[in-house]
Amino acid sequence: MGERKIIDEIWKKFGENVEYDDCAFVPEEDKYILFTTDFVAEGTHFIHNVNPEILGKFIVAVNLSDIAAMGGIGDYFLLSSFLPGDADFEFLSEVMKSLYFFLKSYGIRYLGGDLKESSIIGFSGFAVGHVEKNKILKRKGAKIGDIIGVSGLLGKNAASYYLWKMGLLSFEEVLKIQPKLEEGRELAGKARIAMDTSDGLISSLYQLQRINKIGFKVDWNSLPLHPLAMEVIEDYDVSLFDLLNFGGEYQLLYSADRKIIGYEIGEVVKEIQDYGGKGYESFSKTLD
Amino acid sequence: MGERKIIDEIWKKFGENVEYDDCAFVPEEDKYILFTTDFVAEGTHFIHNVNPEILGKFIVAVNLSDIAAMGGIGDYFLLSSFLPGDADFEFLSEVMKSLYFFLKSYGIRYLGGDLKESSIIGFSGFAVGHVEKNKILKRKGAKIGDIIGVSGLLGKNAASYYLWKMGLLSFEEVLKIQPKLEEGRELAGKARIAMDTSDGLISSLYQLQRINKIGFKVDWNSLPLHPLAMEVIEDYDVSLFDLLNFGGEYQLLYSADRKIIGYEIGEVVKEIQDYGGKGYESFSKTLD
Repeated sequence: MGERKIIDEIWKKFGENVEYDDCAFVPEEDKYILFTTDFVAEGTHFIHNVNPEILGKFIVAVNLSDIAAMGGIGDYFLLSSFLPGDADFEFLSEVMKSLYFFLKSYGIRYLGGDLKESSIIGFSGFAVGHVEKNKILKRKGAKIGDIIGVSGLLGKNAASYYLWKMGLLSFEEVLKIQPKLEEGRELAGKARIAMDTSDGLISSLYQLQRINKIGFKVDWNSLPLHPLAMEVIEDYDVSLFDLLNFGGEYQLLYSADRKIIGYEIGEVVKEIQDYGGKGYESFSKTLD
Repeated sequence: MGERKIIDEIWKKFGENVEYDDCAFVPEEDKYILFTTDFVAEGTHFIHNVNPEILGKFIVAVNLSDIAAMGGIGDYFLLSSFLPGDADFEFLSEVMKSLYFFLKSYGIRYLGGDLKESSIIGFSGFAVGHVEKNKILKRKGAKIGDIIGVSGLLGKNAASYYLWKMGLLSFEEVLKIQPKLEEGRELAGKARIAMDTSDGLISSLYQLQRINKIGFKVDWNSLPLHPLAMEVIEDYDVSLFDLLNFGGEYQLLYSADRKIIGYEIGEVVKEIQDYGGKGYESFSKTLD
């Protein structure tokens, strides 16, 4: 059973009618406070002996991506770290240093966290942000006739993964992502809906169709692909579907009455589109 | 290297002069917003096939205990869950149900979270709360002559652990704790300092001495011990020191100019006391 399915089951039981957006949000005067948490673990998201500087930024980026997708501004960050008893303290220290300065570059305060022993290395980030009430970006609210846009070139992280598996690229390239906070602020108050593509484009389209109950029709022939993505399609027989059905990409996907940022990739239509699958599900894949 | 030492090293490097309290806190008009995160994992905090209802409450309680120790009121809760690919969905669902209704009983909103695959079962909770600025309880600020108080009987969880190891009690007794939120509110604005005893009484006293740079002198002969604690001391040759140097107890420890709640156990003095150790460190012990 994939992550989406399990989460759906749990929401159905305990959901209190909360919409399933990138962040939880609660009203506070003229704004919403945004809360989000993301967990990354060795074996699932990164390999042993990964570069700690890149890992530190990755932990931050996956959490801030959710705030970006809501059009928000990041404020605070906490981290739960769990490490084996014989873990390398220098490694942890390097991860923390990178994480700390990366947060600082976005004006976000690191508020500490928790450190516990565990049999694996893992990090659970918790980010807090805010967004003006009239600017929040949710997943529901697309209209037929909207254009569909993405914030940047697609397929880089999936392509990096395949190139790494073939021994042609270092694993760290898979983890190199930038949280799209500036892009999210440009969309805030202007786009009709937004979400990040952390589960891959296919999965995002599938979810947006399910939530909006209308179709998200993408023009597959004119997608803005990253050069690495074009390389693996042309030279290594990886399909476009495989690249777009892959988690770990953190672009923003949006619909609006016009292109606001990035690239226009399709149109919101009446008919639900068949994407031949529900998309990448992190709960049923690991790095093996 | 124990948890305290590693945390100290990291704080020294990236700390921004944040005091090491139970929660991180940030000002917001006339109150502080409180943030805290706590991670619990199979093998470190609970055994395989543990009762899911009790586990759900435990996850909530360890997080809310930190808010209680600051004199705060709980508002929101998020949860990162990580589970093996072949995890039992019914188990997760039972944990969530228990967690959800336990939060609800304290008027705290569950805001969702994250679910990821991992090689072990673990849960990372994030709790958000608040406390009036003039009522916040920190760890620093004790005065010579203050009484030292605890919110309840000591040694129950450690005693339960020893009785479980001897096959005389079910493991679940170790996890049965109540977050002392009401007690924290009674102390708020009245006690001089407070913290929870989640690393055990000895460790808490050690930390309070280090932070306040004065002595916390406890009267060992008149400590309020739980009946189970007295039982293991009398019948099973477990020392008082072992019971009080054990993590997993969640009473509130405070100093004040008079007894406010619970039991008076000593006095704040000029001379630093020798506690024969730095106390339980969760990073250097597991359930084995």
